[in-house]
Amino acid sequence: MAQLSLPQRCAAGFITLLLLSSTAFAQTSDADQAHQLRDAALKDGWGYQFLETLTTMGPRLAATDAEARAATWAETTLKEAGFENVHRESFPMPAWQRGRERAEVVSPSPQRLVITALGGSVATPPEGITADIVLFRVYSDLLAQAPGSLAGKIAVVTERMPRVMDGASYGAANAIRRVGPSEAAKRGAVAYLHRSLGTDNHRIAHTGATNYQDGAPRIPAAALSNPDADQLERLTARGTTKLHVLLTPTVQENAQSWSVSAEVKGSVHPEEIVLIGAHLDSWDLGTGAIDDGAGDAIVAAAGKLIAALKPHPKRTLRVVLFGGEEMNYSGAAYAKAHADEASHIVLAAESDFGARKIYAFLAPPGSATTPFIRTLADTLTPLGIFLAREPALNSGDDIVPLHAAGVPVIAMRQNGLDYFDIHHTADDTFDKIDQQELNQNIAAWVSMAYLATQSDLDFRKLATDAKQP
Amino acid sequence: MAQLSLPQRCAAGFITLLLLSSTAFAQTSDADQAHQLRDAALKDGWGYQFLETLTTMGPRLAATDAEARAATWAETTLKEAGFENVHRESFPMPAWQRGRERAEVVSPSPQRLVITALGGSVATPPEGITADIVLFRVYSDLLAQAPGSLAGKIAVVTERMPRVMDGASYGAANAIRRVGPSEAAKRGAVAYLHRSLGTDNHRIAHTGATNYQDGAPRIPAAALSNPDADQLERLTARGTTKLHVLLTPTVQENAQSWSVSAEVKGSVHPEEIVLIGAHLDSWDLGTGAIDDGAGDAIVAAAGKLIAALKPHPKRTLRVVLFGGEEMNYSGAAYAKAHADEASHIVLAAESDFGARKIYAFLAPPGSATTPFIRTLADTLTPLGIFLAREPALNSGDDIVPLHAAGVPVIAMRQNGLDYFDIHHTADDTFDKIDQQELNQNIAAWVSMAYLATQSDLDFRKLATDAKQP
Repeated sequence: MAQLSLPQRCAAGFITLLLLSSTAFAQTSDADQAHQLRDAALKDGWGYQFLETLTTMGPRLAATDAEARAATWAETTLKEAGFENVHRESFPMPAWQRGRERAEVVSPSPQRLVITALGGSVATPPEGITADIVLFRVYSDLLAQAPGSLAGKIAVVTERMPRVMDGASYGAANAIRRVGPSEAAKRGAVAYLHRSLGTDNHRIAHTGATNYQDGAPRIPAAALSNPDADQLERLTARGTTKLHVLLTPTVQENAQSWSVSAEVKGSVHPEEIVLIGAHLDSWDLGTGAIDDGAGDAIVAAAGKLIAALKPHPKRTLRVVLFGGEEMNYSGAAYAKAHADEASHIVLAAESDFGARKIYAFLAPPGSATTPFIRTLADTLTPLGIFLAREPALNSGDDIVPLHAAGVPVIAMRQNGLDYFDIHHTADDTFDKIDQQELNQNIAAWVSMAYLATQSDLDFRKLATDAKQP
Repeated sequence: MAQLSLPQRCAAGFITLLLLSSTAFAQTSDADQAHQLRDAALKDGWGYQFLETLTTMGPRLAATDAEARAATWAETTLKEAGFENVHRESFPMPAWQRGRERAEVVSPSPQRLVITALGGSVATPPEGITADIVLFRVYSDLLAQAPGSLAGKIAVVTERMPRVMDGASYGAANAIRRVGPSEAAKRGAVAYLHRSLGTDNHRIAHTGATNYQDGAPRIPAAALSNPDADQLERLTARGTTKLHVLLTPTVQENAQSWSVSAEVKGSVHPEEIVLIGAHLDSWDLGTGAIDDGAGDAIVAAAGKLIAALKPHPKRTLRVVLFGGEEMNYSGAAYAKAHADEASHIVLAAESDFGARKIYAFLAPPGSATTPFIRTLADTLTPLGIFLAREPALNSGDDIVPLHAAGVPVIAMRQNGLDYFDIHHTADDTFDKIDQQELNQNIAAWVSMAYLATQSDLDFRKLATDAKQP
């Protein structure tokens, strides 16, 4: 600092003091506003009602009439809720539909098995497939088999997915469903069954998309309920077991899906966008309450509380309800359509893990010590949410393509101990939602969305700086 | 006492002492034997294995090939286990089979509903029934409707069955399933759906027999899963709801079922019989693990431990695995066929409430203060079982006709908090069995069966005396 006269120094000191107190005042004000929004969310009734109505409309399988009905309803509902620029954005995708699905033990003792086709599975011949099974209790044992060794057999994998709080076991087990059918086909199998990627013990199978690999025959693939996988373990321990499997799914190649977009225009930097999303489509077996009607309700209810603020926060908040997530179209169409805009999206996040309580949040890389994160952490502490040590590197499948295009993310971590009891099953219904836990989610999301839209932080720059050695 | 000389008094005293010590010795010996059997049962592996194998054989629907297969297997298995006089006893009954079952909301929003036909239900026309519903949240509200008031409608009852430890809520709610269809039909309804008599929240419906009443049209009847009953409540709260229901059950009138009987012949009073039973048939949806494969395993394993004793206990122990219980043929055929023998059955009991721990037992009327019950209570205390204050007045549906014919009963009370989560559903599978809890049941039953077969008590007389004013 250069030498200043006393009056100059006093004046400078006074100005510094003014600036400091103005900054302090602004921070206090944002924090207070975040606290008020958080507390209002805890008493929210709109989000729960939104979810109840959404789940009365029938399953929202991607690229079907039911998904379209839900998108139309969501558009109307978000307009009524005070959002601006509410519209649907369509994109092309194939429409896979389930058809009949049936399996039974032919010998040694006839009995029905509970299965469900994997999303994208091809059909069996109309008469089904009847064959002996080869059972692997560990998936890697299947991978260790020689080509041709499963010729004419139905391959069955009964590896279990462990129950863990953050759901990380799902990622670890995912190849069993995604890649298993092609790995079995490469070895000659004529069909593929696997133990559901689920932690329950009910006669309800968990569906989910599979991805046929190039260079392998496409064989019919389905998930067994956990008790049925156990039963096949018992039967094969006693001798040869023959099954009959029938699947009749169909695909319409040139269908379309929709995402619904709604905004709260920023009062100072409307061109800077904080995007919070969830996916509107669901599997066809349940009614899509935890996956992902809950996410839709959480981000919509958080956005609605922010839309009611006068003036609006500085940046624009955009709520996107993505279509087609379950069928591998997770945000890819959205990222492509919005490629030119990606640099204006300052932060993105998705809620797609049910409605159990959030217990931690992950800051965007390089931002952990910023006032934004400190204020957010203080706001979330009373909700039982702590700041995780590791930075946010993803935040929902629909956000992955945006993140790949350079959009920084922030993430919430929820209690998923019972998530995979229900995930992708007929049991995904509204009765599984606890309103208080749903509201804790809305409270966390509205706090985060408000503080992010009110912040001036350049998360991109922080992330880039954090990467420097 | 008359005057005795000293030598006489000494001799009398000596004899009294001898008698006392002999009694004390006999009691100690029986108690010790009961304790040894109890402790051996806690380490049992045979019962669990029996149940595992039984449940691999497919559902054992009454009067079907699957039930016959199980009866043949049980006969062989009980012979190998050391029982005497092992044989099957056939009796005639109709064979009801399920067929297809399907329901969906036609309007306002198409979606599938999970239902299951009630045992004994008639079929719908081949094209199904399409009609608006009238929904009653309380069963008595249906009963309050005027004749004709439900003309052309599908009646839906969504009253909930409470979760209670001893399962008493099932009896209270039973009329909803047993009588509801006829009550709805009397008022003009064309079909009847009710919320499953179940305490779970899964998309799995609970079946069970219904009993059409004379003088009312026989209308198709099915149970809704709990979440589906909830969904119909939500939809009807929003407006008119139209369903399509299809059921295609069939009945073969002149079929037959089998009970399996096995004995441990008494060493002193072989003509006096203590009968312990369970039922071998099951519903067709699951594999009959808790209902009632567990009971079969418990009484068979208890009997096997007693069969190994040399010498056998004084009285004969008879183990009966009843056929056809679920279809209202509960022990009636057995009691009829054994009418002449009923007076020789000194005590009877059935295990038909799953494999959760027993927490109390009920003494035959008038026997609570006898040495038999005191020794039994002492033997069961370490298992966490207390003597209930009220006497045993029933002990399983198959025993009711024997009890009506004068046979005294003894009863065990089990923890049924989660029994009606699974009861009569596809979820009734072997994985629901906890081996330690199963063994606690076997330990209690072997203790009771041993002490009863070793006892000289006349339970009939005690019960008659207890009835005197």
